Amino acid sequence: MEKNRLEAFSDGVIAIIITIMVLELRVPPPTDSSPHPAGLADLKALLPVFLSYVLSFIYVGIYWNNHHHMFHSTKHVTGGILWANLHLLFWLSLFPFTTAWVGENHLAPTPTAVYGLVLLMAAIAYYILQRAIIAQQGRDSLLAAAIGRDWKGKISPLCYLAAIPLAFVSPWISNGLFIFVALMWLVPDRRIERVLANRK
Amino acid sequence: MEKNRLEAFSDGVIAIIITIMVLELRVPPPTDSSPHPAGLADLKALLPVFLSYVLSFIYVGIYWNNHHHMFHSTKHVTGGILWANLHLLFWLSLFPFTTAWVGENHLAPTPTAVYGLVLLMAAIAYYILQRAIIAQQGRDSLLAAAIGRDWKGKISPLCYLAAIPLAFVSPWISNGLFIFVALMWLVPDRRIERVLANRK
Amino acid sequence: MEKNRLEAFSDGVIAIIITIMVLELRVPPPTDSSPHPAGLADLKALLPVFLSYVLSFIYVGIYWNNHHHMFHSTKHVTGGILWANLHLLFWLSLFPFTTAWVGENHLAPTPTAVYGLVLLMAAIAYYILQRAIIAQQGRDSLLAAAIGRDWKGKISPLCYLAAIPLAFVSPWISNGLFIFVALMWLVPDRRIERVLANRK
Amino acid sequence: MEKNRLEAFSDGVIAIIITIMVLELRVPPPTDSSPHPAGLADLKALLPVFLSYVLSFIYVGIYWNNHHHMFHSTKHVTGGILWANLHLLFWLSLFPFTTAWVGENHLAPTPTAVYGLVLLMAAIAYYILQRAIIAQQGRDSLLAAAIGRDWKGKISPLCYLAAIPLAFVSPWISNGLFIFVALMWLVPDRRIERVLANRK
Repeated sequence: MEKNRLEAFSDGVIAIIITIMVLELRVPPPTDSSPHPAGLADLKALLPVFLSYVLSFIYVGIYWNNHHHMFHSTKHVTGGILWANLHLLFWLSLFPFTTAWVGENHLAPTPTAVYGLVLLMAAIAYYILQRAIIAQQGRDSLLAAAIGRDWKGKISPLCYLAAIPLAFVSPWISNGLFIFVALMWLVPDRRIERVLANRK
Repeated sequence: MEKNRLEAFSDGVIAIIITIMVLELRVPPPTDSSPHPAGLADLKALLPVFLSYVLSFIYVGIYWNNHHHMFHSTKHVTGGILWANLHLLFWLSLFPFTTAWVGENHLAPTPTAVYGLVLLMAAIAYYILQRAIIAQQGRDSLLAAAIGRDWKGKISPLCYLAAIPLAFVSPWISNGLFIFVALMWLVPDRRIERVLANRK
Repeated sequence: MEKNRLEAFSDGVIAIIITIMVLELRVPPPTDSSPHPAGLADLKALLPVFLSYVLSFIYVGIYWNNHHHMFHSTKHVTGGILWANLHLLFWLSLFPFTTAWVGENHLAPTPTAVYGLVLLMAAIAYYILQRAIIAQQGRDSLLAAAIGRDWKGKISPLCYLAAIPLAFVSPWISNGLFIFVALMWLVPDRRIERVLANRK
Repeated sequence: MEKNRLEAFSDGVIAIIITIMVLELRVPPPTDSSPHPAGLADLKALLPVFLSYVLSFIYVGIYWNNHHHMFHSTKHVTGGILWANLHLLFWLSLFPFTTAWVGENHLAPTPTAVYGLVLLMAAIAYYILQRAIIAQQGRDSLLAAAIGRDWKGKISPLCYLAAIPLAFVSPWISNGLFIFVALMWLVPDRRIERVLANRK
């Protein structure tokens, strides 16, 4: 029951994060030179904001998906797990800010680096949460067996870490890394399902 | 249980989408010529925004209603269904943007065409999600039996597709099509209820 | 199960409505004459917006509370009940708009009248929803027995109806009526609890 | 079941409060002197807003955590508890406003004092809710046994009360008090868990 409420709260926060990002997508208000910004050119100007929204939507979707699987294998929730979960939600809550900043500045170096930093912190927070659950489950941890060597979970933060300084060389490299990691995770994580099936 | 969490998350996202659209409904700030915009004329100026809000509210309500029925017939949720569902939520999340753009520009051609495009993409995403569920249910699919020939689901995207180029002829035709499709769906979809009742 | 999802969706929408109203409560941005609006005078200028927020918060709280009790006595949800519920949520979703407009214009006549109109429409929508549930429950309706003669439900819309034209005489009278109705409902509605207890 | 819906609604409101606070975190729009505010200096200017967001995120997290524990020990929900809960949610809903005001004004005295006032009112509302639950549970109250002498619950409002006038001496002292109270509560409240374990 406790676990259900933690899941419901996390779902609520993640649902709000994924939805308020779209509030940044707005046609600029009318100006003297363009009293009715309702043409295709105005839409085209929104393209960078739209693309950064798509990328962040996929990232938040991946986190929700993995969060879902992780807690599927969890029975009891401790105070430590509660706070590790809130810590993850904190970093996810910064996605709308970094998404908007990157989108409005067309891949400028600093916003790209900050976008990568928030991705890195979220990945670290996810790792801490995973450790807290495994510690609570003990030696026979279902989650530990499921994630195995967890190479995806190890490569991702390295990519983000590399993307931060590389943003000042070329933001294109950093954004390429962000897209690469997203694609890597889009393949749904069936490890936990597999282990669960084996145990039956 | 997995299914419940997917439903709860979808409900959360849809609840936020349907509610933040209303944030676009605001009286313009005071100007020099109108220091206190609190008259009936100021309210009248909001009418196009209000009407596009009403139409989009009904559309999101229809999607929630049908989503509700569709998952009622579903037992197991796969990774593919999860992502097909997120894909649908992505296109629904663009409704507040297109609603505001159409409303602020009083039926200008480009915003109307983009409104239709997002409706079309959401309809396609809904179709993909329906196919993913039917594929998972297999030959004896309850959902496949329930939707039958699915003429509503086939006419709707054709109407949206027609409305996109027609917006540049006359936005009135396109908006008439959008209203026609909404009315067609407002008749609640009792097919699934009927099939369920027959099987008992 | 269907009922649970309708309740969860309604809770989500009502939770968002009650919370986004507070977004209107913001200190005005710095101007040349007041570069740092961080004094008590700036706070005092927000008082009308704050008071209209308090009133609307109580109204939405009352609706949530009564919605809660009403569905407590409901078992099956039909398509008609689903749409009657969405219709109620539609009018509730306009509360943030009317609350902000009244608050920003310090009880001007037109915003006060529109505030009353939205209250009236929400009351009518609530009545329709109540009728839809009673019709579905049939002759032995628990809800019909519980609400009895429903004098609160009959006096409230009359008060709103009177408040609309009276706003153009004096907005103070209308707002007094809104406060009176809110206080009348704040006494929690224990009729359904009582009937339920009697039947046991 | 009633309790579940109250928990779900509270979770929804708290999830929205904790997430919309981040909407205040935005890079200022381009000006003539800074056409592309995308540098590290622009980020640094956001630091006070960011820090006040972190503090408020922790506070809302503490309230969610304690709310969670408090209702864990509750079985029946009365009308009085419903309204005491809404009263708590009301004061929590003001956190985004006070957080933004403090952050934008870099620890000015009045915003700091108002921040403390809202913290104080939320603490009082929490205390009233706790009393309402204990009164409903009667002599053998699990919650009363769990909170014991409740020294944390008594020290916190005293700190807030002291912080309000001290903000006009030095806002640093007040903010230090806010941080001290947050750290005190961050130690998760295991009293209820302990009492529950003992009773088994």
